[in-house]
Amino acid sequence: MNSLLSFKPYNGIVTKGDFLNALGSALGPKGLTSDPDAMAPWLTDWRGRYHGAAVAMAMPAATAEVAAVLRICSDHRVPIVPQGGNTSMVGGAVPDGTGTALVLSLRRMNRVRRLDAAAGLATVEAGVILSELHDIARGEHMRFPLSLGAKGSATIGGLCSTNAGGTQVLRFGTMRSLVLGLEAVLPDGSVLDSLAPLKKDNRGPDLKQLLIGAEGTLGVITAATLHLVPEPPETATAWVGLDSPQTALSLLRRLERLPFAVESFELIPADSLELVLRHIPGTRPPLESASPWNALIEATGERDVREQLESALADALDRGLASDGVLAANQAQAMAFWRIRESISEAERASGPAVQHDISVPVSAMPDFMTSAAAEVERAFPGTSATAFGHLGDGNVHFHVRAPADVDPERWITQAAKPISDFVYDRVIAAAGSISAEHGIGQMKLDTFQRVTDPARLRALNALKAAFDPLGIMNPGKLVPSLASDARAP
Amino acid sequence: MNSLLSFKPYNGIVTKGDFLNALGSALGPKGLTSDPDAMAPWLTDWRGRYHGAAVAMAMPAATAEVAAVLRICSDHRVPIVPQGGNTSMVGGAVPDGTGTALVLSLRRMNRVRRLDAAAGLATVEAGVILSELHDIARGEHMRFPLSLGAKGSATIGGLCSTNAGGTQVLRFGTMRSLVLGLEAVLPDGSVLDSLAPLKKDNRGPDLKQLLIGAEGTLGVITAATLHLVPEPPETATAWVGLDSPQTALSLLRRLERLPFAVESFELIPADSLELVLRHIPGTRPPLESASPWNALIEATGERDVREQLESALADALDRGLASDGVLAANQAQAMAFWRIRESISEAERASGPAVQHDISVPVSAMPDFMTSAAAEVERAFPGTSATAFGHLGDGNVHFHVRAPADVDPERWITQAAKPISDFVYDRVIAAAGSISAEHGIGQMKLDTFQRVTDPARLRALNALKAAFDPLGIMNPGKLVPSLASDARAP
Repeated sequence: MNSLLSFKPYNGIVTKGDFLNALGSALGPKGLTSDPDAMAPWLTDWRGRYHGAAVAMAMPAATAEVAAVLRICSDHRVPIVPQGGNTSMVGGAVPDGTGTALVLSLRRMNRVRRLDAAAGLATVEAGVILSELHDIARGEHMRFPLSLGAKGSATIGGLCSTNAGGTQVLRFGTMRSLVLGLEAVLPDGSVLDSLAPLKKDNRGPDLKQLLIGAEGTLGVITAATLHLVPEPPETATAWVGLDSPQTALSLLRRLERLPFAVESFELIPADSLELVLRHIPGTRPPLESASPWNALIEATGERDVREQLESALADALDRGLASDGVLAANQAQAMAFWRIRESISEAERASGPAVQHDISVPVSAMPDFMTSAAAEVERAFPGTSATAFGHLGDGNVHFHVRAPADVDPERWITQAAKPISDFVYDRVIAAAGSISAEHGIGQMKLDTFQRVTDPARLRALNALKAAFDPLGIMNPGKLVPSLASDARAP
Repeated sequence: MNSLLSFKPYNGIVTKGDFLNALGSALGPKGLTSDPDAMAPWLTDWRGRYHGAAVAMAMPAATAEVAAVLRICSDHRVPIVPQGGNTSMVGGAVPDGTGTALVLSLRRMNRVRRLDAAAGLATVEAGVILSELHDIARGEHMRFPLSLGAKGSATIGGLCSTNAGGTQVLRFGTMRSLVLGLEAVLPDGSVLDSLAPLKKDNRGPDLKQLLIGAEGTLGVITAATLHLVPEPPETATAWVGLDSPQTALSLLRRLERLPFAVESFELIPADSLELVLRHIPGTRPPLESASPWNALIEATGERDVREQLESALADALDRGLASDGVLAANQAQAMAFWRIRESISEAERASGPAVQHDISVPVSAMPDFMTSAAAEVERAFPGTSATAFGHLGDGNVHFHVRAPADVDPERWITQAAKPISDFVYDRVIAAAGSISAEHGIGQMKLDTFQRVTDPARLRALNALKAAFDPLGIMNPGKLVPSLASDARAP
């Protein structure tokens, strides 16, 4: 067995009854259900793209119960699908259709174990919901500086397991950089306790990094110690019109050298803005004159942030780095700016089908990639229109390819999606980028991941998987591609 | 074999000649030596505590040559000891005495592959020396914000492999947080290329995190893409007298909320200062009146840093957070302050033997730990005096226990070192801390690491080792303790 973890030898087939009895006595009535109605909401992903079945759903209330579940599943060789808020964009938390897997919901593990505002630390369990953590931090005049659309359902465990990003990565990094400590259960039921927030700890490689972003394929994250930061005394929000992504990056580089902190720098092309204005009720153009590109900028600081941002933008206008710009006069106007950014996908859906890609390349390469890749796609697939928008400062954009005007939407998606995505991903790899910047691999991108990934990397990932999950019971069919026939050759 | 990496079956014993010929043809005359005089300086650690022997020393000049060396060593089952500047504090880069190992020096791989000041990126090979990188960055009006005493010899590869720290961790973190991309060769000779600086990349767990801090036991780091930051427009340095570590932490917390950035906050007890003043020529007390504790503070910012720090310290005096304080009037005075901090170990050596510990605990627990652990040690080992100094803001101090006045130094060290260290480390573990904050485990702390580490963590580390280095040829005898008899029990 490719592991030094300790597993009992397999006692052969057990009845579903034996398995459920073992779970039941470990979890109690509140901790286990096989009621189809109770399980139904958790067997389909939130976008309704993936449907699965499960033998049961375990809902442990403590780390020791999670350990018991993993030991029982190891003993009986039953696959486990860990699940938080079930907000995966890539079908990462839905079981397959065989009905053999156990869904392991962490949602009942939702205690705040420790809160130390002075130290900027919160130790919370995997089931705590992101917006709840936001509220808890706010109550201490602190904030947890990671936010995303699904904040009302996404859990800390899921956010850690997928190394979630969002709109504040530019300043605070992804989940990985906000996790100071972690508690996880390995497939053999042993508990890795690294919750203590040690700023310096050189006892070998940082094992918690293995669980972050592993999508539940190596173990189950049960708690995390997270970094809280003080609420910013001042915030300023601006909408800027500019002529190209290249200019936008130059502007960002200038702003980053000023005293305030640039927390968000979102790039929005003219046609995405037009779609929002056309399809989203109550939206209005922030600027009188339209520009080919727009930047939504949010800066925070100790004092004079508004004045500093204003003069920085005036300077940008003088230097030709911006064609127009406006600062939000108040919180309501700032929210209106953000509503435009957050409505782009909805507006695109309203205007017709699009093939969407969540990609990243090195930041300095992103402007050229956005323009050149879009042109290449439109050349290769006549009639389509390609636009990229999003987190320019993170080198991460959402690259959408919209259908030609005259096609049948359903038929087009079925026929065009794969060739278009392959075309886009090949260019991303050629630019040393990632086919998944934020969303992970899950089951949706598994084939693509396998197709475009360096065999050395696939071997390393499989070696890791074999070392920690030799039985292959942890979220099978997600993230880890089986090795291509040639992938094991030297 | 516990791995999915691909190794040739062992062809049985080979002669030393065959092995060296294979290496020679892969590396050329400049790339290989078995000349005892040429190897001698690299077979003993810089403090002269560990002495080893080697069959030869390989000096590859390119990643492909490193890959060839690892394949040849795998084929012949020859142990490899990767080495950079050989400045390990724990004997991590010295082979054992059997003479069977190959020393793999990365020092000839010293090219700067790419420098992008605008993006704040430098891609450099493993053999580049830290002070060279400092100079290169300075030439671009940038800086690489990690520095330590061995900067004139320590190499980037070694700094990555040991996740080095230093005096700027408070603001910029350890090496781990400055490594944006990594290139490494795995024991089977496959090359993991993750050099592209992707701010967001969610293709599974971040494999480069495995190599950082692994002390060459999982593979060989050949290049890294590092984060450069702009040179700070202004810097201010202060020396403050205060009454306790608790007060020092309160002061630090206040300073951290001010507009400038606190880059260093070094805590120094009165007796350490006295030793420096007594033993280090040309040192003078920064303050007229002595205080039980001293803080050396360095702050940087865009403007008015000196004024801001001055008023912050005046406010601290009013609040009783400081008993006295002075700002360095010029660069020379700032350097004089730093010389005191950096001379403490030398001054202690001059005054007699001390048992030294590089430890960390959660920052908020450090003040109490410093006072209580010191008192406990002095109670348990009558006549000793225990002092802790260093990076309070990182939760990392150097905890030194000095000999009683009337003992024979050599005999005392031999007899007292182990019981004292065991005593200290047990208290560190009880405080959820680390027995190695900065220096790593190497061979020096291997027994202690095994003694005090949770079996689950040891199993995970061994599973990792078996997955990537199933032949056990990567830096054997370092970092990875063999599993205790009970460590594999569930």
